[in-house]
Amino acid sequence: MELLKEKIIQEGVVKAGQVLKVDHFLNHQIDVELLDQMGQEFYNHFKDKKITKILTIEASGIAIAVMVARYFKVPVVFAKKNKTLQVSNDVYTSSVASYTHQTTNQIIVSKSFLSEDDHVLIVDDFLAQGEATLGLISLVEQAGGTVEGIGIAIEKGYQAGGTRLREAGYDLLSLAIVLDMCEEPRQITLK
Amino acid sequence: MELLKEKIIQEGVVKAGQVLKVDHFLNHQIDVELLDQMGQEFYNHFKDKKITKILTIEASGIAIAVMVARYFKVPVVFAKKNKTLQVSNDVYTSSVASYTHQTTNQIIVSKSFLSEDDHVLIVDDFLAQGEATLGLISLVEQAGGTVEGIGIAIEKGYQAGGTRLREAGYDLLSLAIVLDMCEEPRQITLK
Repeated sequence: MELLKEKIIQEGVVKAGQVLKVDHFLNHQIDVELLDQMGQEFYNHFKDKKITKILTIEASGIAIAVMVARYFKVPVVFAKKNKTLQVSNDVYTSSVASYTHQTTNQIIVSKSFLSEDDHVLIVDDFLAQGEATLGLISLVEQAGGTVEGIGIAIEKGYQAGGTRLREAGYDLLSLAIVLDMCEEPRQITLK
Repeated sequence: MELLKEKIIQEGVVKAGQVLKVDHFLNHQIDVELLDQMGQEFYNHFKDKKITKILTIEASGIAIAVMVARYFKVPVVFAKKNKTLQVSNDVYTSSVASYTHQTTNQIIVSKSFLSEDDHVLIVDDFLAQGEATLGLISLVEQAGGTVEGIGIAIEKGYQAGGTRLREAGYDLLSLAIVLDMCEEPRQITLK
């Protein structure tokens, strides 16, 4: 998607450890016009699937998910990062390792909001190793629902997540794929 | 706003300690059509102000803020809950006490995204004691910007936040005001 690629090239900030910061338009300040166009792109690609829910993770995924959901006219459900040690019986749960933050989060979704009747489009801002996406897939599977597709804003093409998901047979659309980054001198190469 | 009031009456869950859970349509699952109507209501009320930014706090505020921002055609900025002890020089910061969770969070916004030229509409899902809203107001003031208004989905009318903000002279619009709640037998009284 050209507009997103331009934004990444112009405003993306490369940090040590292959971290790409897109705080200017996606992760802290949000360019709503850009997100609307992203929503339209995801809709065009997945519109023939009978999507009943858009699923994402708090916090950055929520803005994208809402703009996608407008086109599909279905609810958003966002998985929460569990902050307590207790897990009640009325939630589905899975563990998500974060390489960036060197932590493991438990994510949860209330059983009220995912069921075997659901055909789910998973949406998120980044795809790197694929841990977060696999965690969301697990939540849908626990509910007996169907993952109809995965929509990602920015895929890190040099990490394993995209390959893992495509080889597993998922319909994955990434709107921009980063092939290489360098902090100094700053360079971002997109597919 | 009638649709929001109906949703609260029909689907709101009252928990001990005057907690109102609206996970079915606002805080976990999101009814995007409802949010779009809320965005329209906020726009109708504040459209004569020269709004340049919509400001909220992660995570629940983001969905509402994005839908409001569509009408104003301005960016969203969401304050982040600071998870590290270090605070860098390039952020504005304030402390927010949560009575529900009995914690104090530090919230931060990058100095890149709020300036003295900004005319800000603050948006959030709940208003109770007003701590979160006052924290956001502080961030705008630190930047030298102007708070043009405050848009809240659900105000707890029996708590002090609404009075504090109105007496301080802020243009506050709450789309639903809860006057009283009871867990057993379940009852929610709206203004």
